[in-house]
Amino acid sequence: MYRKEIKVLDCTIRDGGLMNKWQFSDEFVRAVYLACVEAGIDYMEIGYKSSESAFSRDEVGPWKFCDEGDLRRIVGNNDTPLKLSAMADIGRIDPDDIAPSKDSVLDMIRVACYVHQVDKAIALAETCLDKGYEVSINLMAVSKVAEIDLDEALQDISLSRVPIVYVVDSFGSMYSEKIQHLVQKYQKALPGKTLGIHAHNNMQLAMSNTITAIMEDCLMLDATLLGMGRGAGNCPMEILIAFLKNPKFRLLPLLDVIQNHIQPLQKDIDWGYHIPYLITGALNEHPRSALKWMASENKDDFVTFMKEMHDYE
Amino acid sequence: MYRKEIKVLDCTIRDGGLMNKWQFSDEFVRAVYLACVEAGIDYMEIGYKSSESAFSRDEVGPWKFCDEGDLRRIVGNNDTPLKLSAMADIGRIDPDDIAPSKDSVLDMIRVACYVHQVDKAIALAETCLDKGYEVSINLMAVSKVAEIDLDEALQDISLSRVPIVYVVDSFGSMYSEKIQHLVQKYQKALPGKTLGIHAHNNMQLAMSNTITAIMEDCLMLDATLLGMGRGAGNCPMEILIAFLKNPKFRLLPLLDVIQNHIQPLQKDIDWGYHIPYLITGALNEHPRSALKWMASENKDDFVTFMKEMHDYE
Repeated sequence: MYRKEIKVLDCTIRDGGLMNKWQFSDEFVRAVYLACVEAGIDYMEIGYKSSESAFSRDEVGPWKFCDEGDLRRIVGNNDTPLKLSAMADIGRIDPDDIAPSKDSVLDMIRVACYVHQVDKAIALAETCLDKGYEVSINLMAVSKVAEIDLDEALQDISLSRVPIVYVVDSFGSMYSEKIQHLVQKYQKALPGKTLGIHAHNNMQLAMSNTITAIMEDCLMLDATLLGMGRGAGNCPMEILIAFLKNPKFRLLPLLDVIQNHIQPLQKDIDWGYHIPYLITGALNEHPRSALKWMASENKDDFVTFMKEMHDYE
Repeated sequence: MYRKEIKVLDCTIRDGGLMNKWQFSDEFVRAVYLACVEAGIDYMEIGYKSSESAFSRDEVGPWKFCDEGDLRRIVGNNDTPLKLSAMADIGRIDPDDIAPSKDSVLDMIRVACYVHQVDKAIALAETCLDKGYEVSINLMAVSKVAEIDLDEALQDISLSRVPIVYVVDSFGSMYSEKIQHLVQKYQKALPGKTLGIHAHNNMQLAMSNTITAIMEDCLMLDATLLGMGRGAGNCPMEILIAFLKNPKFRLLPLLDVIQNHIQPLQKDIDWGYHIPYLITGALNEHPRSALKWMASENKDDFVTFMKEMHDYE
């Protein structure tokens, strides 16, 4: 029996863009968009909402900005049931650069922040609420944060108007017990708010951690096509949709876009399970050292990487 | 805190051999053996124990037979703490072709059978016990079996002298709840016996299903290096060892053999997560149709595979 309150969010372009600086062709982004529409996915996160002053267009593609013109070139007025989301990073977006929601094809802004930035995140999130958007806060890297600091951040959020909060396993370092512990903690600290889950696949646990979160009543589920995302990638959308019993979802359009667009890209962009990502995940470290290693000539020498990372045997 | 009763069994050669008909070089098998010794792995399953009359040496390599001479060429007298295992399939081995354990470097025989073969399996297993081996029964493909037939098979095993029984997810079709249900059922039906877990990775759940089994007190854990095995492969040994806290295990020798032997082989043998394996797993089907598809020219056209398999959308 399915839980009809569950919403699935595709973040293939936003999280996958971390691997190619959001330099996707329009054709690629449109194919993902159309597949999400056809498959009955609830939300598609099409990129980051950043100010033009924060990054150079010479270095990053349009999905780092989610400019209204770029968006409409792909989705028109988005006359579909699929809602569009963009992620905002603290310090990378001037609130004045976010148009009122009535003037945008975006439906939702998800504010990503570290625990020490939570007050800034709440301010930005409430500004977006006032502009008419659906809003969430995605608390990153909580596996490295002292419990007392996390508790304080959750208390701040509980007093805010932000309606959705995500449990995020940024480093892919969490086992099921940890996910369960965090979801229960967030639930207790945030009565009346909706919870979401965003999992990474360093230890091949992104799918099962998403299931654990569902069992604990998380209702917003992040996933990406073929698990495309930074480093080891994310919860694979096609596995999640095969698991969920909600009749509104269709698997075939997702397989089609994977076959014709996503898998071919994997020849150039090497996301997915690789030993250096396992090592950073198991050590509860940011994947940046593994990403650097995987981009080097020594990428297959993970024994040396392991020795450099740690005296871990 | 670790559970010291847990034993880990590497079945890289036995299960991986399903992908190349056990035609590994001696150097490769020796590298896996030495890595298991160095890493403190408890058991290594080096192949199948089959009668020469059951298969042709022109078609399959030595690890389909586990002839004593072939074994000793790799392991000598195996003067190490690592125990060696071979799997026996019902109907493929004449019990007279199994030497007494005092004359063999093998320590364990694992009898694999379908539920309808359980009486034959018990007879073979008890013969192996009488010959001095450690013995298990690995009940295959139980996800397709009526509960009443499984219950009867378990009752038969409960009345036997066989001390170890494996929960096997042959098709990679089981979610955590199913693993939990089966382990609890086996425990109730088989008081005093030790349980094991053997998981496949079609839905990227092999590692998490192994953790679920550990939480339910399974003490024998199967895994393979880099998940090498039939189709989507198995629970990856390196992730399992990074998870287990038992100080007797060492990860580095496993990473070394993966780097120098296992990963290079992946260029020729394409095990691991692929959409056709996800489809058979999600449909609770034997992977043979997906294996055939993956060996064809159309391997990347999984939309057609999906349509041929099912009207599943």
